[in-house]
Amino acid sequence: MPIYHAPTKDMQFVLHDVLKIAESDIPGYDELDRDFTGAVLEEAGKLSENVLAPLNPVGDRQGCTLENGVVRTPEGFKAAYDQMREGGWMGLDADPEYGGQGMPYLLNSAVGEMFVSSNMAFNMYQGLTHGAYSAIHAHGSEAQKATYLPKMIEGSWSGTMNLTEPQCGTDLGLIRTKAEPQDDGSYSITGQKIWISAGEHDLSDNIIHLVLAKAPGGGEGTKGISLFIVPKFLVNEDGSLGARNSLVCGGLEEKMGIHGNATCVMHYDGARGFLVGELHKGMRAMFTMMNEARLGVGLQGYAQGAVAYQNALAFAQDRLQGRDVTGPQSPDSPADPIIVHPDVRRNLMDQKSFVEGARAFTFWGAQMIDRAHRNEDSEAEAMISLLTPVLKGFLTDKGFETCVLAQQTLGGSGFTREWGLEQFVRDARITMIYEGTNGIQSLDLVGRKLGLNGGKTVMAFFDMVKAFIKENEENEALKADFLDPLKKASKDLQAAGMYFMQNGMKAPNNALSGSYDFMHLFGHVCLGLMWTKMAKAAAEALDAGAEDTVFYETKLATGRYYMARQLPATAMHLARIESGAGPVMALDAANF
Amino acid sequence: MPIYHAPTKDMQFVLHDVLKIAESDIPGYDELDRDFTGAVLEEAGKLSENVLAPLNPVGDRQGCTLENGVVRTPEGFKAAYDQMREGGWMGLDADPEYGGQGMPYLLNSAVGEMFVSSNMAFNMYQGLTHGAYSAIHAHGSEAQKATYLPKMIEGSWSGTMNLTEPQCGTDLGLIRTKAEPQDDGSYSITGQKIWISAGEHDLSDNIIHLVLAKAPGGGEGTKGISLFIVPKFLVNEDGSLGARNSLVCGGLEEKMGIHGNATCVMHYDGARGFLVGELHKGMRAMFTMMNEARLGVGLQGYAQGAVAYQNALAFAQDRLQGRDVTGPQSPDSPADPIIVHPDVRRNLMDQKSFVEGARAFTFWGAQMIDRAHRNEDSEAEAMISLLTPVLKGFLTDKGFETCVLAQQTLGGSGFTREWGLEQFVRDARITMIYEGTNGIQSLDLVGRKLGLNGGKTVMAFFDMVKAFIKENEENEALKADFLDPLKKASKDLQAAGMYFMQNGMKAPNNALSGSYDFMHLFGHVCLGLMWTKMAKAAAEALDAGAEDTVFYETKLATGRYYMARQLPATAMHLARIESGAGPVMALDAANF
Repeated sequence: MPIYHAPTKDMQFVLHDVLKIAESDIPGYDELDRDFTGAVLEEAGKLSENVLAPLNPVGDRQGCTLENGVVRTPEGFKAAYDQMREGGWMGLDADPEYGGQGMPYLLNSAVGEMFVSSNMAFNMYQGLTHGAYSAIHAHGSEAQKATYLPKMIEGSWSGTMNLTEPQCGTDLGLIRTKAEPQDDGSYSITGQKIWISAGEHDLSDNIIHLVLAKAPGGGEGTKGISLFIVPKFLVNEDGSLGARNSLVCGGLEEKMGIHGNATCVMHYDGARGFLVGELHKGMRAMFTMMNEARLGVGLQGYAQGAVAYQNALAFAQDRLQGRDVTGPQSPDSPADPIIVHPDVRRNLMDQKSFVEGARAFTFWGAQMIDRAHRNEDSEAEAMISLLTPVLKGFLTDKGFETCVLAQQTLGGSGFTREWGLEQFVRDARITMIYEGTNGIQSLDLVGRKLGLNGGKTVMAFFDMVKAFIKENEENEALKADFLDPLKKASKDLQAAGMYFMQNGMKAPNNALSGSYDFMHLFGHVCLGLMWTKMAKAAAEALDAGAEDTVFYETKLATGRYYMARQLPATAMHLARIESGAGPVMALDAANF
Repeated sequence: MPIYHAPTKDMQFVLHDVLKIAESDIPGYDELDRDFTGAVLEEAGKLSENVLAPLNPVGDRQGCTLENGVVRTPEGFKAAYDQMREGGWMGLDADPEYGGQGMPYLLNSAVGEMFVSSNMAFNMYQGLTHGAYSAIHAHGSEAQKATYLPKMIEGSWSGTMNLTEPQCGTDLGLIRTKAEPQDDGSYSITGQKIWISAGEHDLSDNIIHLVLAKAPGGGEGTKGISLFIVPKFLVNEDGSLGARNSLVCGGLEEKMGIHGNATCVMHYDGARGFLVGELHKGMRAMFTMMNEARLGVGLQGYAQGAVAYQNALAFAQDRLQGRDVTGPQSPDSPADPIIVHPDVRRNLMDQKSFVEGARAFTFWGAQMIDRAHRNEDSEAEAMISLLTPVLKGFLTDKGFETCVLAQQTLGGSGFTREWGLEQFVRDARITMIYEGTNGIQSLDLVGRKLGLNGGKTVMAFFDMVKAFIKENEENEALKADFLDPLKKASKDLQAAGMYFMQNGMKAPNNALSGSYDFMHLFGHVCLGLMWTKMAKAAAEALDAGAEDTVFYETKLATGRYYMARQLPATAMHLARIESGAGPVMALDAANF
């Protein structure tokens, strides 16, 4: 069975040595000293290691079953869900007004990484609830908030997002689900939704579906879409559960992974629904959920890579095969552990340097969200909007790739069920697809986010990188190994942006053909920046006489690997981008 | 259910327009005119499309079952196997002296691609038999050949390769299976072998296991290994089946993919075995099988990519979502087919340009094998030895990647079972692992093959590329789009080789740390060469007034894509290589 160790120490390093969160001016961060975050992470780690991780292969093997409209989750899921509820984990960053603990989103993200690494399919049940909570919290009426949020925060009710229909995934303008206004102010919802994660299950007493549908008079396309609360059980005035609503799970998808999570076909047959926010402005409300969800999916991507890496490392340190070419390392054993071999190292270092860089990037992004919300800082809001598609697209592509690399470390064992690596690969695969495929992320980045605030936001990103490099140019520990490659990568990114400006205006396909490479180029620059920041923090700790020299030296060495071996990818992405739309669009669709 | 169309036309282009096989001086190639190969490919294509492809999802869902030592293959496999037998497909390139059809290996490879694309798990049963046939043919005694080969060629007996044991995969020196000499000249074989593909099943009357074991007196490590024939049923003097041998399938592996193929734990408990070739020289005999098997696995990699691409393309031409940014293409439909979107194109072109390049590379390699064997050409033998790890490692890495890309084209549908893409991903994954992981391939390439014949073989490769570029430098159709990028990529490859020469001598880890990147760099140069050759052939066909201008123009455009968008990867691989062992080996094994 696969192992999992909560990476508490590395998280503390990012939170305190790198981001120095306790010194931040973000309201609520003053509580987050090293002891406090350490205690929270330790508790979350125990739950992850002892309760969630052992259930992960169980969920994969048993999957969910549907019988007479009732979905049963795998054995042990209900008990674990109740344990999570009782521990108060589901409302960690939720509004105290409705029973939440009001912790920063950043802390919730750190805890979330552990939950996702140990059991992604399980954690989706509460993840979806969190997304639905956020949408109601941001756009619901006071009465709706009072009715739904406390129960959702405590986990006795869960939530879902209903967007996709058979004929429409990315293109929500094609939605057919109808909302007919009723005399009492509610709506009658009719239509079919597919791929609804956690759409039906046996973990909570009620399920609060958030459903996109078209009400009359809204016009064509996405303009006509509204957002509705459609509860599985209607809620009485006193808050108790009333009649069963006219909605049913019509089937479960058979899929490649995340078998422990029920992916449902949902039928709404004149179900009672309640408008959230303004009529015909459902897309705006949905975007609130989607941005948060996209960050969460980016986190899922690298979190699967994180646990896969741990298992690859343990195998590489244990498995005896062949001899170190420079001389036997374990002369008394029949062979050396495979970690002596340079190509096994190369593989492990690719994994390790990505996972730790991605963790820092995600925490940094989560801090920006806190700043945007808690300080009402519109620049932070814009910056995280710019970075959201990068966090989602790059971290899930590379997170999946990391799982594949980790699987490769195990050779044949990686292909067999019992070692668990193949499950991480199958589970991680969905992160590149849902919440907007990574192709869509790249379109969002190039088509929408680059032009945000007339291009000022992306310029602010470039300026920030430049300022950071300038600020540290006297730092000899960083110069050659970190600052120089970061500068080079950042120049490649700016050159790509320039190419889009000069060529995308006259022919948008010149920009769109390079969007995917741009997203990866951007991701490498972000991880290069994170590694330089981590190296700086590690060098400072060593200078200050930190006791754990091995930890900080390892951090520096891992960073050097990323800069030397991963950042050269930026030049390749730039070359691909600068080849323009010609090679991409040359063929007629019929001639493929 | 996924589709499959036999790519007969593209194969004919490679065989006749590019490789011009009918004009070759290789014995047996004179038969291979366009009509003949067309007829064979068409028949194989029908079988693949109509019989094998429909069984592929069946095999995946049902898998194999083991009860009381008996393995049952999925429904329909036996009937399909018999149909393959009756069609004579199993002995297509086998020695006519033993009942084979004596066709070139090249033709067998083309047919094999279709069989693998349509049903990889099924085709492995005969693929393993072919490998065992080759080893016995090359190293067995006349009596052994007469006893086993005719039945194996007709498919009534099948074969396996037994190398791996729980404690030894790559490092065969650790083998514990014992061979005790008996008075009658046979050996008593005892030990456990794992991951034995097609180790037990219900398709053939007998299974001829080739088993690596240690006989007394052979010394330590791989030197003490010998190769044995260990039949499931012993064979009487008259060729009829005798007693059941003391070997049994003790379990089936649960694994990520190729569920239709039985991956067996095999227990040999004093089983009767017969030495093949010389005592203690088993590794040499095994290498005969391994080289052929590695080429076959490279073919599996891109063949899975080929069928995945076909399905991605069909989806992209059919699925309506969003509008072409340059204006609606299907104004009467609610949306345009997604193939209008540049990022979907980018994805499809990555797939298409790899698959067609890989096909040409594999056929070219197969032709080299024919030249090596049929003309007893030692230079061709050396060249294919050099290229074997590239064919295996690069084509399976990129083949898997192509399946993942194709899955991505389908969005959420790619993750669900019914569309079949996720099966291609799961099945393709094993090709990067078995027959020597791709890390091992890269070690073989850098540690052994670069130094082959004192480095003359790799120099011959460089010279061949240079000569080809020079020969065509006046060709304006090729210059900027093909020859220039090929020259650049080839220089990167030579620079990497130079780096190894200058730095690997003093510290071998400098070479070994870059081996994986070198394998990919080499692969890109090979595909760049193939695309330039294909472009040349296409341009010549157009100049000669070929009727099917669309086909040849599409070929040119696809090649331009590969050169513009894929070859820039060579500079990245070179940069990684030139960063040396430092970043890779910096950490102590204990400090990860």
